[in-house]
Amino acid sequence: MACQYFAPCDHGADSFTIAIPKVTFGRGTLAEVGERAQSLKMSSVALFTDNFLKEGPYIETVTNSLKKAGIDYQVFSDILIEPDDVCVDDAAKFLTSHDFDGVISVGGGSVIDVAKAAMVCAKFPAPVRDYFAPPVGEGKPIPGPLLPHIACPTTAGTGSECTSISVIRIRELNTKFVFASPYMLPDQAVIDPTCCESLTPKAVASTGFDLLSHALECYTARAYTQWDKVKNPNARPLTQGANPWSDLAATQALKIAGEYLIRGVTDASDHEARDQLMWGSALAGMAFGNSGTHLPHALSYGVTHLMHDITTEGYDVKSPFVPHGISVVVTAPATFRYTAEATPERHLEAATFLQADQRGASTADAGEVVANRIIELMRGTNIPNGLSGVGFTENDVTRLAESSIRQGRAIANAPRESNLVDLENIYRDAISYW
Amino acid sequence: MACQYFAPCDHGADSFTIAIPKVTFGRGTLAEVGERAQSLKMSSVALFTDNFLKEGPYIETVTNSLKKAGIDYQVFSDILIEPDDVCVDDAAKFLTSHDFDGVISVGGGSVIDVAKAAMVCAKFPAPVRDYFAPPVGEGKPIPGPLLPHIACPTTAGTGSECTSISVIRIRELNTKFVFASPYMLPDQAVIDPTCCESLTPKAVASTGFDLLSHALECYTARAYTQWDKVKNPNARPLTQGANPWSDLAATQALKIAGEYLIRGVTDASDHEARDQLMWGSALAGMAFGNSGTHLPHALSYGVTHLMHDITTEGYDVKSPFVPHGISVVVTAPATFRYTAEATPERHLEAATFLQADQRGASTADAGEVVANRIIELMRGTNIPNGLSGVGFTENDVTRLAESSIRQGRAIANAPRESNLVDLENIYRDAISYW
Repeated sequence: MACQYFAPCDHGADSFTIAIPKVTFGRGTLAEVGERAQSLKMSSVALFTDNFLKEGPYIETVTNSLKKAGIDYQVFSDILIEPDDVCVDDAAKFLTSHDFDGVISVGGGSVIDVAKAAMVCAKFPAPVRDYFAPPVGEGKPIPGPLLPHIACPTTAGTGSECTSISVIRIRELNTKFVFASPYMLPDQAVIDPTCCESLTPKAVASTGFDLLSHALECYTARAYTQWDKVKNPNARPLTQGANPWSDLAATQALKIAGEYLIRGVTDASDHEARDQLMWGSALAGMAFGNSGTHLPHALSYGVTHLMHDITTEGYDVKSPFVPHGISVVVTAPATFRYTAEATPERHLEAATFLQADQRGASTADAGEVVANRIIELMRGTNIPNGLSGVGFTENDVTRLAESSIRQGRAIANAPRESNLVDLENIYRDAISYW
Repeated sequence: MACQYFAPCDHGADSFTIAIPKVTFGRGTLAEVGERAQSLKMSSVALFTDNFLKEGPYIETVTNSLKKAGIDYQVFSDILIEPDDVCVDDAAKFLTSHDFDGVISVGGGSVIDVAKAAMVCAKFPAPVRDYFAPPVGEGKPIPGPLLPHIACPTTAGTGSECTSISVIRIRELNTKFVFASPYMLPDQAVIDPTCCESLTPKAVASTGFDLLSHALECYTARAYTQWDKVKNPNARPLTQGANPWSDLAATQALKIAGEYLIRGVTDASDHEARDQLMWGSALAGMAFGNSGTHLPHALSYGVTHLMHDITTEGYDVKSPFVPHGISVVVTAPATFRYTAEATPERHLEAATFLQADQRGASTADAGEVVANRIIELMRGTNIPNGLSGVGFTENDVTRLAESSIRQGRAIANAPRESNLVDLENIYRDAISYW
């Protein structure tokens, strides 16, 4: 396969490794969490969620299910959106202060990622920052298994329930970084699309673009055959590049985003669309968790880092805040205009899955075709018009690029190389699209 | 999703559960087995293989890799094709006679399935027959985890490296039965397509049709929404019917079979085709391991049960023997002619993935379109002409049907119901195709 996969090279990897949790998908499956916890021999559970969800129906369903199964639980809910290392420390203290034998996380990516990170720091005590790659951290290895973990997403975007990855903000640097380990993969993902029914259109849109961009970045990522062979197969990074597995899951996720994103945002009663987006989000997680993302995610961390005094309509958050999916998609059209030159056929294929209009398009138009389809979907779901739509100007371009250039592995996972000037040019092109 | 998945019904299941092992795919990956065994904390390994492979290069690669990793191993290789319960008993005795902390299986479905079954019987001592569903066995539950297991397939057909299923012949009844448990899923599958290079065209053809039929049966299986809800989610059978996950993996496996089967059989030097078939086999395993097969597999057990004094050319076997993939595909065209009436659109979609000629076809032609494409692939790969090609006549039809009717769950997983007379009619239609 390696030798036939697109863009082979002499020194390149000739194999890939993939892993996903056991996945249960369907309406009403949150009520099964207690029995699933039993199957993992849980008797005393740390239940992670956030303060918005804590008093709501999903946590009630889960706790009723745990009670019915005779399982004790304690709730940790002090998790803000874009959680930081201080939050992880608190969560790890919570884990070590009780004799838990399992973890259940119910929430968006913030909740699931804090649960993963706290499990690491509780089992192998160290500040979470030590686990990040240098120069941010020390690249401390995670030496063994963590507590069993059931992850239950409540948005159709993160995909974290299906990945071994956690994204945490380092408060001192005010920037998000990624760390990962095979041991951080949840044992089970319980995905109940009824959780999406109460989401606002804004939340469906922003999380939906996270899903879309996960899938689009996977499909257009550097081929795994272009990464060097690893010396120790157990040390193969999850960011291993596009491969036949990530292609399969990403393709279906792109088709779902292309068909259902606008429907899911504009009509909360469209169960078909919202259920499909929830499934697409899981598929995109299965894909990027085994290939890695690239420039749109790398560039989003600069946006999150430097955002001004913005609060996004429809989100009850007091601090400056750009929802993650929006921070990703505002640079996406400009990014794909830049990357398409390297692998125009892959970009055109991805555009086809997204139902782009390709009449008369040649490979030279691949970047525009992808960009135009993303812009069409952005406009159809009231997403801000590029960086200017979330408060940035030309004057921010240099600082944005300087912040994002630190995301080394993600930048190297793009199909086309980029330096600081290239990133500045992409940000500049992303100021405004219409 | 459930409510939108095809063929919903009021009392039907509204969720599905899927699981696969960690999978590594690529040329040369057999040499990584030692390091992968280390990551699973193995120090003393039971190495299952067969007497054909025992002295060959694949086992040499694996044992060298284990030695390099400082891992002890003992080999068990007394595994015949179509292994029976006596073989499993011997293998279980081998497992309990040493202090093993891990299992590695290197071989086709026979080897991997014996490893799975022996691990059950060694850990929870009982005759393997007790674990089969009544009336064959006692439906004894498998109460907990088994030893860690790395499965390494050497054919592009079985898919067993990716499933929780074992198929074992009960010697007393001379018939194969299936048993399964989530605990029987290998921890890791290491899939090295170089193993296919030395296969004879006959072996590539017969295993290739196993892969093709796994995928085709998954895609046309009863929808999971048509099976009743399960009371305990942990007791959901793996044969849960077609679902969005199995559709995804099966679709890609069908596309691979349609494009590469004839090429892989007819040209041993066509690495692209043989690598793709190996990947397709894994995908088909991921699919049927989470949906179940249906009539072609159920009917194949009757064929295997009652085969006459046939030895198949190209196989060095002294006893009567029809390779599994051939026993499946000889009834496949007749079966899909029968089942297409229930879900003609699904059958036509599957035919499209197999690159069938559908010019002018309507839903009324779905069965013929699928059957004709299978027959075309059979003829292109020198597969026997139906049941008569493997020594059966009209006189065998009743006994074949009486044998196969015992495969209750697989028969119920077909899209169309069938009784003894229906099975007889399918066998009759399968006597000869050209």
